[in-house]
Amino acid sequence: MFDWLDTHAEDRRRAGLSRQLRPRRPDSDLLDLAGNDYLGLAKDKRVSGAAAAATLRWGAGSTGSRLVTGSTELHSELEYELARFCGTQSALVFSSGFAANLGAVTALSGKNCSIVTDAYIHASLIDGCRLSRAEVAVTAHADPAAAGRALATRRTERAVFVTDTVFSVDGDLAPLGELAAVCRANGAALIADDAHGFGVLGDGGRGAVHAAGLAGAPDVVTTLTLSKSLGSQGGAVLGPRRVIRHLVENARSFIFDTGLAPGSAAAALTALTVLKEEPERAGRVLEIARTLAERLRAAGLAASEPDAAVVSVRAPSPDAALAWSQDCRAAGVWVGCFRPPSVPDSVSRLRLTARADLTEGEIDRAVEVITRCAPR
Amino acid sequence: MFDWLDTHAEDRRRAGLSRQLRPRRPDSDLLDLAGNDYLGLAKDKRVSGAAAAATLRWGAGSTGSRLVTGSTELHSELEYELARFCGTQSALVFSSGFAANLGAVTALSGKNCSIVTDAYIHASLIDGCRLSRAEVAVTAHADPAAAGRALATRRTERAVFVTDTVFSVDGDLAPLGELAAVCRANGAALIADDAHGFGVLGDGGRGAVHAAGLAGAPDVVTTLTLSKSLGSQGGAVLGPRRVIRHLVENARSFIFDTGLAPGSAAAALTALTVLKEEPERAGRVLEIARTLAERLRAAGLAASEPDAAVVSVRAPSPDAALAWSQDCRAAGVWVGCFRPPSVPDSVSRLRLTARADLTEGEIDRAVEVITRCAPR
Ligand SMILES: Cc1ncc(COP(=O)(O)O)c(C=O)c1O
Ligand SMILES: Cc1ncc(COP(=O)(O)O)c(C=O)c1O
Repeated sequence: MFDWLDTHAEDRRRAGLSRQLRPRRPDSDLLDLAGNDYLGLAKDKRVSGAAAAATLRWGAGSTGSRLVTGSTELHSELEYELARFCGTQSALVFSSGFAANLGAVTALSGKNCSIVTDAYIHASLIDGCRLSRAEVAVTAHADPAAAGRALATRRTERAVFVTDTVFSVDGDLAPLGELAAVCRANGAALIADDAHGFGVLGDGGRGAVHAAGLAGAPDVVTTLTLSKSLGSQGGAVLGPRRVIRHLVENARSFIFDTGLAPGSAAAALTALTVLKEEPERAGRVLEIARTLAERLRAAGLAASEPDAAVVSVRAPSPDAALAWSQDCRAAGVWVGCFRPPSVPDSVSRLRLTARADLTEGEIDRAVEVITRCAPR
Repeated sequence: MFDWLDTHAEDRRRAGLSRQLRPRRPDSDLLDLAGNDYLGLAKDKRVSGAAAAATLRWGAGSTGSRLVTGSTELHSELEYELARFCGTQSALVFSSGFAANLGAVTALSGKNCSIVTDAYIHASLIDGCRLSRAEVAVTAHADPAAAGRALATRRTERAVFVTDTVFSVDGDLAPLGELAAVCRANGAALIADDAHGFGVLGDGGRGAVHAAGLAGAPDVVTTLTLSKSLGSQGGAVLGPRRVIRHLVENARSFIFDTGLAPGSAAAALTALTVLKEEPERAGRVLEIARTLAERLRAAGLAASEPDAAVVSVRAPSPDAALAWSQDCRAAGVWVGCFRPPSVPDSVSRLRLTARADLTEGEIDRAVEVITRCAPR
């Protein structure tokens, strides 16, 4: 029955694309440049303490769909605070950023709608498009003119443009202002996934959509994850009140999914409070990412010019990327290794992430190890 | 731009299909017959205590994809224990049951595969089918002969049959043994979503797949959620080792999603330990569900004959179902209200769930209130 799985696995192995789970230990002393805990809040005692307290108070799970028993006051408070912080009318919390993207894209498009996307959007947005039954057109990466052409030549009245704000692999920023203008000129809505912008970009970490002046716009919908800058789990959609109401009643990944665990909602809520109290964390991430990238480029490596926390460094092949990341790890520095199908352009890379609490010494160590282990 | 949303909302309102979030308070004294915390473990101090401790130790979030930083020893331990308990070779933990279903269905089918499904499968399985690019045939509910015909007349070599074990709306059991035989006779694999069977059915709550003698089978894959009987959040896929390896390397909802929060993994792990120590919880749920249903039928209501924890009671219309559930709630008993699109057959219902820790007095109260509030 499942014999084809072995052939498939063998093909991947030959192509250098095998993957393995490597569980972390609690006492690991690896220098972590691989995770997405950009603000260093996942282990902040205020955040984990609030999560622990909420779990004891509310229980370990939310016990049902958000529409039945799965909404607690914590969920509503988090929704209120996210919307207020980011400057939108309303917000809705999902069990993951993946689910938020599926919900936003499917419920706001549909058969009578065209979706135009940037070619490099996140897998969860792509899956949302596939699920939507809309006509989907994929346009060149970060190309507002191409977006405009695709929107102008669509065959349906309704249309949405879907993009990441900060692309997850290379950390480059979408031309949000121009995209929004093109959308408006063509009567289309904009769905922007701010997973990697929120907490890092914009005034005090309010995100890339806020920074572009689009936060309260009637035709813009933002999706977020609570699992990166906020150090927790979960996702959210932010936008006009009527959009949120529509999602509550129509988004399948909201309706048919158990609500986010109370502890995760509390963690995100407290992380948001910390970010408000310590807004300098946001700018610090970007500064560290730029320092890292500059120093790697100075050492002759093909590092990206980061617009947010992510720095990517190109590798000559999937095998080379894997060996490079493994050598770094053996030398105490943990970096991500992105190979197909996790890259949009089939180029394998190291993927490094800056964290607000990285020290000078840690940055030195990272640069030294990554450079030393580089393939020649 | 979003004006169509208001028209849409108005249509739903007129059809009696509006939905609203009603956040819970921590001190609510409603009698809960609406949640899916079947074993009463979400608030068990052992479970929530373990979740709190793990959150403090590991952090509030897992910080990355399971393939990068998002796998902790807790995740592997949970996978090991789930597989051992249920009698499969291997297991893989996802961030939700929804994500587990998307991952299992898409990664184990594909363009060169046919999917045959029961007509009443859960929304997350349906979305998995839509995402799969496979040819999908939907067959009559709980009808192995129809399944066999659809499998026999497929146009691809590979095929999978997809079903819930216990259907989420009416709580009825799929004819798993017959379905597995039909699958085998037709060279197809079986994917069975045991979200509502696990923790309730089978030896000590090992689930419906185990009860049907199919747990270790080489051609059977089980999906689970950690958000119902285990009182936490998350999902899992259980099956042969090569299936799990394939999912690690191919399931998009696994690869492109942040790992389950450590606290939720710890909660599920501890809930599983409690279930092993107190196996009588499983049988008790079924007993209570049957008592509830019998007494409601004796009172003249159209209650289902429960095969697991769920009891459904038919209502004459969406409006009547909503009013009924609201009257119950006003009288202190919280029941689910399922209306289109959350029902497979457009019949609106109350949906009650049994919990292992419901007392005789609570059952009396529930029956009294539900009967008294029934539409005439
Ligand atoms: C751009 C982007 N969107 C969405 C997601 C999904 O969010 P989550 O991991 O919280 O499901 C991710 C990463 O995981 C991402 O990088
Ligand atoms: C049959 C079934 N499968 C899968 C799911 C999804 O699981 P989760 O809520 O953990 O995402 C549910 C309910 O939520 C369900 O009822």
